[in-house]
Amino acid sequence: MDPKSPLNNLVVVLVSTRNPLNMGAAARAMANFGYSQLRVVNPYELAFREAKSAVGAASLLRSAQEFSSVAEAVADCTLVVGTTAGRDRKLDHPLKQLQQGAAIIRRRTRTDKVALLFGSEKRGLSNEDLSQCDWLIRIPTDPRQPSMNLGHAVAVCLYEISRAAKVPAVREREQPANSADLERLTGLLHESLMLSGYAKNEADKGDIRRLVRRLKLSGGDAQLLLGMLRQMLWKMRKP
Amino acid sequence: MDPKSPLNNLVVVLVSTRNPLNMGAAARAMANFGYSQLRVVNPYELAFREAKSAVGAASLLRSAQEFSSVAEAVADCTLVVGTTAGRDRKLDHPLKQLQQGAAIIRRRTRTDKVALLFGSEKRGLSNEDLSQCDWLIRIPTDPRQPSMNLGHAVAVCLYEISRAAKVPAVREREQPANSADLERLTGLLHESLMLSGYAKNEADKGDIRRLVRRLKLSGGDAQLLLGMLRQMLWKMRKP
Repeated sequence: MDPKSPLNNLVVVLVSTRNPLNMGAAARAMANFGYSQLRVVNPYELAFREAKSAVGAASLLRSAQEFSSVAEAVADCTLVVGTTAGRDRKLDHPLKQLQQGAAIIRRRTRTDKVALLFGSEKRGLSNEDLSQCDWLIRIPTDPRQPSMNLGHAVAVCLYEISRAAKVPAVREREQPANSADLERLTGLLHESLMLSGYAKNEADKGDIRRLVRRLKLSGGDAQLLLGMLRQMLWKMRKP
Repeated sequence: MDPKSPLNNLVVVLVSTRNPLNMGAAARAMANFGYSQLRVVNPYELAFREAKSAVGAASLLRSAQEFSSVAEAVADCTLVVGTTAGRDRKLDHPLKQLQQGAAIIRRRTRTDKVALLFGSEKRGLSNEDLSQCDWLIRIPTDPRQPSMNLGHAVAVCLYEISRAAKVPAVREREQPANSADLERLTGLLHESLMLSGYAKNEADKGDIRRLVRRLKLSGGDAQLLLGMLRQMLWKMRKP
């Protein structure tokens, strides 16, 4: 497959998945829709790679990349999208319906790496995980029974993203900042705010990360802001 | 639920399913998308009704109607649609892509009972089963790996059938920051950068203003950044 194919630009990230059979089923669904880039973050069962449910997708599952944090797993992606049942949880994030979000993802994969995150079977994505996301998509389910099987959710999302539909071409934009830059920026800003007394603790970091992601920075502007913050930090530390 | 609701007019028929877990998963997917009419034809395991995979759909699975032939199972339906991976099998039947077929099913369920058939995991629907169908739908999968997990196939089909034809409007975007706020932000950022030695003179202020404008801030985020900068400035000024 062409390494620059839009199909290779979509990265499926399974976060803290408990049941290896669900990981295998997710891999199978990926193969059904032509996707191959699977990343896993802190799987509950380390031996997940042999899951029998990965029918026709055993090699895809075996070659999944493993990470110990969402931040590392999405570092090279310029768009990070979470998935949620979106029930009672209070969401600080913009929420798009699957159909609408899928169209954006499809467009962006033409040029950029996009991460699509699925949380654990019981709890979904944590607030910490969510703070890494630019926005979330919700599959439009019956409010009386919104909680989907993980493999089903992966299948439905990838079906919708890959669904043949002509989407208008994107206008050329500047290359957006990648997640690693945004994370560096979050770190420096948090440090500056701790030093100046504006932020009180680690917990504020999620808010800062969400703010940074809302800025929709280009790669160039992220570098510019990083340079500015470094200089201001240096000044604040000066005795 | 209104017994005449279009949701009650769609009947999911699982034919000769082997694995009870797949039947439970199918029931779960039905509940996720608001469907409740499940019929089974010659299930391999007679004790399928207790399948643990029917999360949130145990009663739906228990109340499934059982039949010994497809003909009986679809007797009261005016449209019968089969599903197929559509590989090498020679099909005598009209084949529609899922999206196209789903639109027809959605329309017909407004007034009529429609049956949607899923075959066994290994073999799909037999020629005998297929002969009961008006037409077939195919989920557009990768030709290299067309065979889907049964639960996934049910989930994807029901998602597409239930998908609101009209995408709901996006929620109102937050009020954008006004120019006065952006100018205050530019002023504070410039002052911070002069104090820390990053900016050298008044001329740099134009660059900073352009940067601030590129951020496309909401009013709320502009206030947030103003507060952060004020605190950092205070710290930098501290002897």
